[in-house]
Amino acid sequence: MGDQTNQSEPKIEEEMERVVELIKQLQEAATSLISMSSREEKVLQQRALSLDASIVKLRSSISSLMMDGRIDATLAEKLEDELNKAKCILVDGDASSFLAGKVDSRFLKMFLGPINVRAIRKDVQFKVKEEYNRYKDRTACLFLLLPSMLLFLRSWMWGGCMPAFPVQLYQAWLLFLYTGLALRENVLRVNGSDIRPWWIYHHYCAMVMALVSLTWEVKGQPDCAQKQRGVELFLQWAMMQGVAMLLQNHYQRQRLYTRIALGKAKRMDVVWGESTGERGQLLLLCPILFILQGFEAYVGLLLLRTAFAGVEWQYYDKLVFSNKYLWQVVFCGFLLVLMAVGNFVNTVQSLLVKSRFKAKMKRTKSQQQID
Amino acid sequence: MGDQTNQSEPKIEEEMERVVELIKQLQEAATSLISMSSREEKVLQQRALSLDASIVKLRSSISSLMMDGRIDATLAEKLEDELNKAKCILVDGDASSFLAGKVDSRFLKMFLGPINVRAIRKDVQFKVKEEYNRYKDRTACLFLLLPSMLLFLRSWMWGGCMPAFPVQLYQAWLLFLYTGLALRENVLRVNGSDIRPWWIYHHYCAMVMALVSLTWEVKGQPDCAQKQRGVELFLQWAMMQGVAMLLQNHYQRQRLYTRIALGKAKRMDVVWGESTGERGQLLLLCPILFILQGFEAYVGLLLLRTAFAGVEWQYYDKLVFSNKYLWQVVFCGFLLVLMAVGNFVNTVQSLLVKSRFKAKMKRTKSQQQID
Repeated sequence: MGDQTNQSEPKIEEEMERVVELIKQLQEAATSLISMSSREEKVLQQRALSLDASIVKLRSSISSLMMDGRIDATLAEKLEDELNKAKCILVDGDASSFLAGKVDSRFLKMFLGPINVRAIRKDVQFKVKEEYNRYKDRTACLFLLLPSMLLFLRSWMWGGCMPAFPVQLYQAWLLFLYTGLALRENVLRVNGSDIRPWWIYHHYCAMVMALVSLTWEVKGQPDCAQKQRGVELFLQWAMMQGVAMLLQNHYQRQRLYTRIALGKAKRMDVVWGESTGERGQLLLLCPILFILQGFEAYVGLLLLRTAFAGVEWQYYDKLVFSNKYLWQVVFCGFLLVLMAVGNFVNTVQSLLVKSRFKAKMKRTKSQQQID
Repeated sequence: MGDQTNQSEPKIEEEMERVVELIKQLQEAATSLISMSSREEKVLQQRALSLDASIVKLRSSISSLMMDGRIDATLAEKLEDELNKAKCILVDGDASSFLAGKVDSRFLKMFLGPINVRAIRKDVQFKVKEEYNRYKDRTACLFLLLPSMLLFLRSWMWGGCMPAFPVQLYQAWLLFLYTGLALRENVLRVNGSDIRPWWIYHHYCAMVMALVSLTWEVKGQPDCAQKQRGVELFLQWAMMQGVAMLLQNHYQRQRLYTRIALGKAKRMDVVWGESTGERGQLLLLCPILFILQGFEAYVGLLLLRTAFAGVEWQYYDKLVFSNKYLWQVVFCGFLLVLMAVGNFVNTVQSLLVKSRFKAKMKRTKSQQQID
């Protein structure tokens, strides 16, 4: 055995030594790469932040110069236009990943802990946004399909009285869906998306409502049609919501594609490209959104009326702590009204921003023609 | 005005040009940094993967050499020991971040979309793990506190009959908690943690059960004590679970601290340090875990018995689609039994791995003494 040992021992030991040495080298290379890139990232972040501040300063000096009459409106518009382009490079380009890190999401921390969900590479960020859009498309289809199915089966198979199980399954799906949407939107926000905060709050409200609706007993016979009136209204509203979501997704996706196309072509005048050819779609989308919001508020008020019809206020405590599922009715009614009002205010604000922007463009054009 | 324009125009325009130029430079620097680091990362990943393969090859050649009798057991043990240390450097060091990226989590994708939650830096990974442990500590305290409070208030204020609202609030908290745990554990797994898959599946089951329990009507008078027997048992089990979680956290945290301390000191013989001084704790933890699992199965079987007492199988369809909340009883009962069995099997497997390891160490020591 001694002879054999002498033959094989050095070989395996040498090989071992070689591998251990390589592993140590790899370890050192990894350490230095990681520390180097985090150092470089910090430097670039500093530069990006200071340039962002410079843009703000320039913007204010342009407007003060114009106010003082020291530059004319045409030049000011031209300078502002250039500034917008520069801002677009900063916000849409690769450097943006070093700017975006400031945003902190408490919602994500609550579910995930202190993990970084920021993508450094711009193409990954676009992929995330694209996947979010695809997710919204899929869910919009289900949003249309599931309540239609429930309402169809109700009259076709269940004789006007829905069983609890499918309705609860649908409510559980809603809870999962809204949680997913809220998480994804927080991820997008951390990655530098300028999504309006209200839409995220809206999904928090919807999450809570789905949770509450799960505890809401789906009552059966007798008087089933009367008892399930709330569920029926909610399902009808959800169907309309599905249609609106499909339209909205189509509209927003076109905006993103324009952005990506322009971004790739290194032309950063994104905002200008956005406001063309979409007028017709907005004209279709807006009334649907407003009708939807009105219907949402109507369902909410109906629920509140049901709950408070004949209930005197001194019994409020009993209402909440009774086993009669009345607090859920009050709570969901209140939430629906809140969401409807919030949606309305935010839709109007978005439209105002758009129309103000258009008016400004028109003014610029006529000014240019005069000059 | 012309004069003033001439004075200020060049100034602001020059400043503008400067800023735009700086932004373009920053953009270029960002692009090159990002592409450079992703290129370097790929190279290091290749090296890490090939070294990982080398370790596997070396391990098999050591055991085949020993089988053939070409090296003796002592040398083989020594070589294997060295190999383990090398593996530890690869798995615990900075290079590990380039190995870990292979794991893909469908659960995370479902909730978050295709976002990367892998931390490159080792200290961030440890921070995530540490925060996960703190989260578990906090939840363990609540796990003990909330059901105790409910049971206490039940006999002290509510006269033996719990109202639905606080119980449902507790169930909603459980749903949130298990979702958070499942998400965090998936994040840890992506970051290279070797958490046993069962514990994650276990939290999926618990999520589903919390969801189902929300739809489960909490019945009141008359016969409240009888109707709420299931809830009572569940709360008692939850209190025990809280105690077990606190003990388990303490035990696991000690292991992590040992690991971090040894890792910092560049001594990678982590496994050896782990198995000292914890014998007493394991002796306390194990019986508690087994009692808990037994109690879990007992609650599950009790629920199943309640559901099937007097229910004939031809009525199964009615059971599931009726408004009587019976399917929830069956479902939760089944899940509890499943979870108890899974927990038992996995606890026993962990203990077997530990004892096998200890036996091996003992054998090595006596061998060395003989030699």
